Amino acid sequence: MTFFDVLDILGTVAFAISGALSAMNRRFDLFGIFIIAFVTAIGGGTIRDILIGNTPVSWMQNITTMYLISGITIFSIIFRNKLDYLKGSLFLFDTIGLGIFTITGVETGINAGLEPIVSIALGATTGCFGGVIRDILCNEIPVIFRKEIYATASIAGGICFMVLYSLDLDQNITYISTALLIIIIRLLVVKYRVSLPLFTIADRNTIE
Amino acid sequence: MTFFDVLDILGTVAFAISGALSAMNRRFDLFGIFIIAFVTAIGGGTIRDILIGNTPVSWMQNITTMYLISGITIFSIIFRNKLDYLKGSLFLFDTIGLGIFTITGVETGINAGLEPIVSIALGATTGCFGGVIRDILCNEIPVIFRKEIYATASIAGGICFMVLYSLDLDQNITYISTALLIIIIRLLVVKYRVSLPLFTIADRNTIE
Amino acid sequence: MTFFDVLDILGTVAFAISGALSAMNRRFDLFGIFIIAFVTAIGGGTIRDILIGNTPVSWMQNITTMYLISGITIFSIIFRNKLDYLKGSLFLFDTIGLGIFTITGVETGINAGLEPIVSIALGATTGCFGGVIRDILCNEIPVIFRKEIYATASIAGGICFMVLYSLDLDQNITYISTALLIIIIRLLVVKYRVSLPLFTIADRNTIE
Repeated sequence: MTFFDVLDILGTVAFAISGALSAMNRRFDLFGIFIIAFVTAIGGGTIRDILIGNTPVSWMQNITTMYLISGITIFSIIFRNKLDYLKGSLFLFDTIGLGIFTITGVETGINAGLEPIVSIALGATTGCFGGVIRDILCNEIPVIFRKEIYATASIAGGICFMVLYSLDLDQNITYISTALLIIIIRLLVVKYRVSLPLFTIADRNTIE
Repeated sequence: MTFFDVLDILGTVAFAISGALSAMNRRFDLFGIFIIAFVTAIGGGTIRDILIGNTPVSWMQNITTMYLISGITIFSIIFRNKLDYLKGSLFLFDTIGLGIFTITGVETGINAGLEPIVSIALGATTGCFGGVIRDILCNEIPVIFRKEIYATASIAGGICFMVLYSLDLDQNITYISTALLIIIIRLLVVKYRVSLPLFTIADRNTIE
Repeated sequence: MTFFDVLDILGTVAFAISGALSAMNRRFDLFGIFIIAFVTAIGGGTIRDILIGNTPVSWMQNITTMYLISGITIFSIIFRNKLDYLKGSLFLFDTIGLGIFTITGVETGINAGLEPIVSIALGATTGCFGGVIRDILCNEIPVIFRKEIYATASIAGGICFMVLYSLDLDQNITYISTALLIIIIRLLVVKYRVSLPLFTIADRNTIE
């Protein structure tokens, strides 16, 4: 199993947890929790596959994804009491997920022969949309519209990926640098409460 | 016309009526009523087709569907005064629709060579998503997140279908058993106010 | 560059502006403004492409679209102070966009060998969905459900297009007549406050 596979699993795990927590915060029932966990974990990749016509979409072809998400959801329900503790690490996991799925999206675009700017947009879509669908279903303001520079970090990562990719470096270096850049941007932004210019949103919820 | 065709028409009819009623309850105008009726009736099948790459999607290839839904919508508007009477039978129709579209979804998955668990997920998506889109457009809490064990019944039906299918029984028996199981679960759940454990939702609306 | 290309660009421009203004009215940050501008400008065409299986979707294959929308969004932000002035012309631009994308949708359906009624539905979907997604993301009542006979004008235009198309007239005449019909219907409807029968919506927001 490559380093990328490990990251991929961590990303799916992170998004599944964030979805399950969102659903529990909204007091959804057992099934609602599973639905939101699944949608958050597979939403971005599903939209990526649909946009480029890669069907049946990935989660339908890799069955382990469904078992993994189911297990993680049960785990999240059992340890929901540890939410406060989890929330901190969750931000990190969610950001790791954002970083990883941005990478898979950009790479998918490159492999599909799309223009760099289009591949970067596909990367941001892949990284962000799981969270967007989760928030729409939970009737919250989508995370990309909050003050945390979420999608912007994803796009910065996508640009970084394209540059390193064009330099023909070792793939793992490209992966790690991109993921780290996104994570660091997110950490700094939240630590120093940086926000994009001009307009702010009333809603100040954290990611979950 | 096979028994399945009859059920299929009944399902489309039921979802079209439920959509029209939802829209009228939200006081949408004539066009809004048609839109919601269409989306509710074709939404699940459309997402099923998009996920597996069966395009143009079904309703674009079978023109009678559009005429059927249009006729049913006009019928629903004319007889809207009978809503109170309709509401009871509507629950049944809607449940029949859930049962039928769950079956078409699971079978589509099997025919596409997907894993059983994936086919069951596709069946639940097909059965539930028309109602989910309807509720999102009507700005209500999606039916699958309410206390009525909606998607759970669909998944139970999907598992039933897979088991009977693997037993190689007569197809009609598989169809009828699956649909009946879903209908019975829904009836019992609402009659005895059963609900899934752990979390409940404030909103207590019935389906329409 | 044909007359149609010019209209197409105007339509994309108009929808991008309407999206940017919507986002600024909702006080989204810089990134939110870009997201909404993009979704509004490409949403309808993306759903059109996904429904008929034309993937990767158009905006991924025609890179100039992304640059055009980006430029228009920056333009909208700089001249946001002129909003009050813009709002008037925006209604016209938005309507032009509706007219153009209705045409591209209907024609796409015809070229895909779909039935006339299905092509008209595809035209309405293409014309209306950018605005619908914009409004859902901005948490407003979708424009098609407001009192301004939006989608109805699109469908009337689609029928007009099919009739003129069947008469085998010069394509530009068909394009212009269809676009003009939609624009005139919208203008008359708003000027004389015409609305569809039966049900009205509380929310009285204008398009932006």
